Amino acid sequence: MLAPDEKLKLSPRSYLSATERFQTGADTPRDFLERCLADIAALEPKIGAFVNLNLEGARAAADQSSARWRAGAPRSPIDGMPVGIKDIIETADMPTENGSPLFAGFRSERDGASVAALREAGAVIVGKTVTTEFASTEPRGTRNPHDLRRTPGGSSSGSAAAVAAGMVSTALGTQVIGSTIRPASYCGCIGFKVSVGALNRGGSYDGLSQSVTGVLAVTLEDAWQVAYEIATRTGGDPGYPGLFGPPSPLPPRKPRRLGVLETAGWAVASRGAKEAMADALIRFKAAGIELITRQSHARLAAVEAAIAQARELSMRINSWESRWPLNTYRTRDASKLSRVMLSRLADAEAMTLDDYRNDLAQREKARALYADLAAECDACVSLSAPAAAPLGLHSTGDPSCTAHASLLGIPAISLPVLQDEGLPLGLQVTGFVNGDAQALAAAAAIATSF
Amino acid sequence: MLAPDEKLKLSPRSYLSATERFQTGADTPRDFLERCLADIAALEPKIGAFVNLNLEGARAAADQSSARWRAGAPRSPIDGMPVGIKDIIETADMPTENGSPLFAGFRSERDGASVAALREAGAVIVGKTVTTEFASTEPRGTRNPHDLRRTPGGSSSGSAAAVAAGMVSTALGTQVIGSTIRPASYCGCIGFKVSVGALNRGGSYDGLSQSVTGVLAVTLEDAWQVAYEIATRTGGDPGYPGLFGPPSPLPPRKPRRLGVLETAGWAVASRGAKEAMADALIRFKAAGIELITRQSHARLAAVEAAIAQARELSMRINSWESRWPLNTYRTRDASKLSRVMLSRLADAEAMTLDDYRNDLAQREKARALYADLAAECDACVSLSAPAAAPLGLHSTGDPSCTAHASLLGIPAISLPVLQDEGLPLGLQVTGFVNGDAQALAAAAAIATSF
Repeated sequence: MLAPDEKLKLSPRSYLSATERFQTGADTPRDFLERCLADIAALEPKIGAFVNLNLEGARAAADQSSARWRAGAPRSPIDGMPVGIKDIIETADMPTENGSPLFAGFRSERDGASVAALREAGAVIVGKTVTTEFASTEPRGTRNPHDLRRTPGGSSSGSAAAVAAGMVSTALGTQVIGSTIRPASYCGCIGFKVSVGALNRGGSYDGLSQSVTGVLAVTLEDAWQVAYEIATRTGGDPGYPGLFGPPSPLPPRKPRRLGVLETAGWAVASRGAKEAMADALIRFKAAGIELITRQSHARLAAVEAAIAQARELSMRINSWESRWPLNTYRTRDASKLSRVMLSRLADAEAMTLDDYRNDLAQREKARALYADLAAECDACVSLSAPAAAPLGLHSTGDPSCTAHASLLGIPAISLPVLQDEGLPLGLQVTGFVNGDAQALAAAAAIATSF
Repeated sequence: MLAPDEKLKLSPRSYLSATERFQTGADTPRDFLERCLADIAALEPKIGAFVNLNLEGARAAADQSSARWRAGAPRSPIDGMPVGIKDIIETADMPTENGSPLFAGFRSERDGASVAALREAGAVIVGKTVTTEFASTEPRGTRNPHDLRRTPGGSSSGSAAAVAAGMVSTALGTQVIGSTIRPASYCGCIGFKVSVGALNRGGSYDGLSQSVTGVLAVTLEDAWQVAYEIATRTGGDPGYPGLFGPPSPLPPRKPRRLGVLETAGWAVASRGAKEAMADALIRFKAAGIELITRQSHARLAAVEAAIAQARELSMRINSWESRWPLNTYRTRDASKLSRVMLSRLADAEAMTLDDYRNDLAQREKARALYADLAAECDACVSLSAPAAAPLGLHSTGDPSCTAHASLLGIPAISLPVLQDEGLPLGLQVTGFVNGDAQALAAAAAIATSF
């Protein structure tokens, strides 16, 4: 049935740019949705981005939104936007299965905080997108829309694939190591991972301390608007001040100075990726942006050293924090946990609370070093992934370019402006904690160089 | 059936002091459990502390524990301890109903982090204890074991009542404003509310930023041991360093100086409560402890000022943080929410994210002022409640003596050493953030004055 080397026709759909025509009546949210649904009908059998769809509910919501736009009273700029929800975030109308047979058919009967906020803003929840097992590494079969033989990345696999294929306009993901930026890179869409704590994770099964909500989108404006509409209605995680920034995206703002971060991923980057990055740096210089590196600036060198083991340190922190609930899942039915999860639990059980405290202290130290960089540059750039999406569906790829942003708790954006092997590759822009809007404004300016 | 003025015979049961006899074989965890179960059979119909019991499971667990003690290989000092679990914390073998008809019969099929840790330590989970609706204010009928006409306090109503009546040895509660210290005061048992973040709340429906797990117990040693055994196995909340302290309770340590905190509760305290407090202070002086007050020390005066509105500030923070999930519960079935919950949701919807940020900033300021007090005294004392448990079951009583400890995120202990109207009244000892073990050591020394 599948023709894996088939080239799909993809129509990624920005929503904000379409709403002008809603105001004139030339288009409607319902029509926008139907275009998405046509692509779902055509492409979903090949891509496998969704675990559950609620088409009837989506159509009804889109009709209500159409009426509001017609009446000149949309609830928000994203009223009517077709959105996909990573299947670790609860939805009242669909199961939340966490990519795990332990949660097959599980219904919480409520919306997660971000989903409730999106519905209040008028957004249309189309379906639940495929996630790896518990948003970790075990893949669940989604294919890359740009090449069906390749992984879309993970763990927000279905969210990135669905957005890249135009089956929804945006989708929610999460990231604790690389689960938003990496699939965005592989699928050629925008990935926006917010500052730690910036979006309320209530009702999402990503309780790890450095996990955050992410937005997969076609434009930076769409990505910002989705995040803003969530934050203004439900804030950040309890005790956090929540996402900072204005009700509309900041205009592009050219950074004066960019830090060029290699991250652990540079050592394993493909030749194509390295060339793409070198070309990007030439463009930035041509645009009059000053670049600083580990060679030129001691503070950047200190950051590079502090994040060299970002992945390993993150994995240890995640392991300890996963001891629960994995221990209760093992008690319930160990045969329904992957070997990776059982081994993570074993790692956790070999740790002590003191080990974890030491890891937290090391993370704090890295965060402080990165914060100091704000005196040297406006943002940093790096590869979003060491290469294009690898062949095969058995792995979601290498997160060595992304773990540092999660460890540091900083906002990160993947811009689909590079290529490797003729396939999408992301340029990663990272900002400073709670400077999400500023990081996006810098990314918007950077994107104009391509 | 009920004889509300009946005087019950209560046998609160410390577990650690019983385990010596397990080692000699003169007693067993199963026999200990059976004594609890006999009291459940006799008293539970009058008190109503439980929503669900798993007697078969408890007996099986106690038998296994008995075998371990017989073999000289208990898993921990609390192996075999009969424990009650507040019904907002998940249990694999019983529903988690949150004191709400919306959760009637709800089964998560997993243990919360604290419950999983307790089982790993060998503890025997006897049942789920009554909580007010969503651990807030709507009472669910539990009666005070010392006077069935009175409230046991809330929201950990059943946990305190069950411990005071000897139906379990200890019980888990939670506190976001006063839900551990107040019922401990009313029911005449130990209440131990830990530092913010100190015990892992995974799988507990108390996601508010200043909410923490609490332990209701008969002795300080039991309370500490329960908290320690949880922390060493599952740590604190993700990102927090977890409860600090040794594997056994610190020996009593007489404070050199105590801060006498009035809190907002003093203004409404009963004459009996004020007299009891005055008597306590005389005892402390007689024991050679120096007392400082708002009159004598400016730093203490600054704290008193900063916590004068602790309850109101906490309520605003809680409201914003409750917007989700209350909004999804209202969508699901508003008729199953109390008027209090609907009104809290309306309060939240009248707030903005900026309002919340201002409240958080005010809380941070109060925390910093209290932290400065560490230079002046070793701990603070205050009333745990403004009076004995009030008559009636329509309210769980006044939290004006307890809100500051939750706002400040500090450890608090209620000692059942005072009386009002011939009924129990707690003396509250508060320490400094992450100084839980030290606060307990001070409380242990203070308790010897009575």
